Amino acid sequence: MDELVRLSALDEIRKLKARYFRCVDTKDWVGFGEVFTADAVLDMSASSAIVDGPVIEGRVAIVDWARNAVKPLVATVHRGYNDEIEVTEPGSATAIWAMQDTLWFPEDAELAGYDGFGHYHDSYILDDGQWRIARARLTRLHVDVTTR
Amino acid sequence: MDELVRLSALDEIRKLKARYFRCVDTKDWVGFGEVFTADAVLDMSASSAIVDGPVIEGRVAIVDWARNAVKPLVATVHRGYNDEIEVTEPGSATAIWAMQDTLWFPEDAELAGYDGFGHYHDSYILDDGQWRIARARLTRLHVDVTTR
Amino acid sequence: MDELVRLSALDEIRKLKARYFRCVDTKDWVGFGEVFTADAVLDMSASSAIVDGPVIEGRVAIVDWARNAVKPLVATVHRGYNDEIEVTEPGSATAIWAMQDTLWFPEDAELAGYDGFGHYHDSYILDDGQWRIARARLTRLHVDVTTR
Repeated sequence: MDELVRLSALDEIRKLKARYFRCVDTKDWVGFGEVFTADAVLDMSASSAIVDGPVIEGRVAIVDWARNAVKPLVATVHRGYNDEIEVTEPGSATAIWAMQDTLWFPEDAELAGYDGFGHYHDSYILDDGQWRIARARLTRLHVDVTTR
Repeated sequence: MDELVRLSALDEIRKLKARYFRCVDTKDWVGFGEVFTADAVLDMSASSAIVDGPVIEGRVAIVDWARNAVKPLVATVHRGYNDEIEVTEPGSATAIWAMQDTLWFPEDAELAGYDGFGHYHDSYILDDGQWRIARARLTRLHVDVTTR
Repeated sequence: MDELVRLSALDEIRKLKARYFRCVDTKDWVGFGEVFTADAVLDMSASSAIVDGPVIEGRVAIVDWARNAVKPLVATVHRGYNDEIEVTEPGSATAIWAMQDTLWFPEDAELAGYDGFGHYHDSYILDDGQWRIARARLTRLHVDVTTR
């Protein structure tokens, strides 16, 4: 693969994942949908989350799930860092991203706060000229939950 | 624009913003001044900060404001991540950076701690061969304040 | 130096440091050893840690030290961001990385949690075709310790 093409792809993929995080936290659901391929899979089954972690198939279902998960919350902050992106062939890439997500619950919720730490294991494809997330799987190192 | 030139600019701008954060936290006010153009604007009006968020014009005023804001604090940690940098033309760029700032107050202060989350909306120009911040505006997702 | 070679080196070094953080937190000690040169130096003398900060010489000793430091803990999360990497010559580079490490202690420990903030000051060399950490020195901005 041409090295310049590879470095450009890294930049695009880094920004793609940044949009994923930003669109959740700003509740930009149109923008959030655009980061995924139509048949993307979001695998939260190992996310050790406070709700059961589903495996969600398809952009529409992923957006619905995320919107419903975020709706009752006061605020969310999702962070990605220390990305290890590998462009495996010109239109395909994988990555591991370290992540942290912090959630604030409303006054009448049983939980007060949630702070989670883990890694995303992603694959991306060049989809009609745009890099998009084809699969993302979240694993956890630790989760802190604060009750009232 | 030449793609290699664009990728080099991304590297320079990423390091520029890293210096912005590092110089505040290490109180390197000479280094902090150098990240801004002489007529830079730092817009903290939407920063939901514990002090009124001003719009500060000019490098000298920005350094003065930041130095005074940080002076009474025990420590500060500012973090930027998930940058989305766009080089709009050879000497101009914009970016969104997710950010978190954590502040520790002295024993005799009313506040104990401050943890803020948001996004920087920046523009940069190539100023006499050096990328510098021409404008930075901070918006907030959430702020946690701890009182004693 | 060729600019494309330099940009490729930045990508390699960024991923190298990401592996450093990930391998500690996932307790992948084989992977952790591979990020260091055989005679690497890890200087924790200014780390303001809760244990005395040693200067550790050599990959084997570094892995042993890290493994023992992490062994009694419930979980660790190490994060690097805002890297300022300079490739000083084709096979040599330096960097400053902002960092945060969060540690969780077991129920029977005196400490409950540890949250540290600082900077890594690193040097890297191209070692038999692989970028590796030749020296890493941690300095601190602040440390928060929670007791039970």
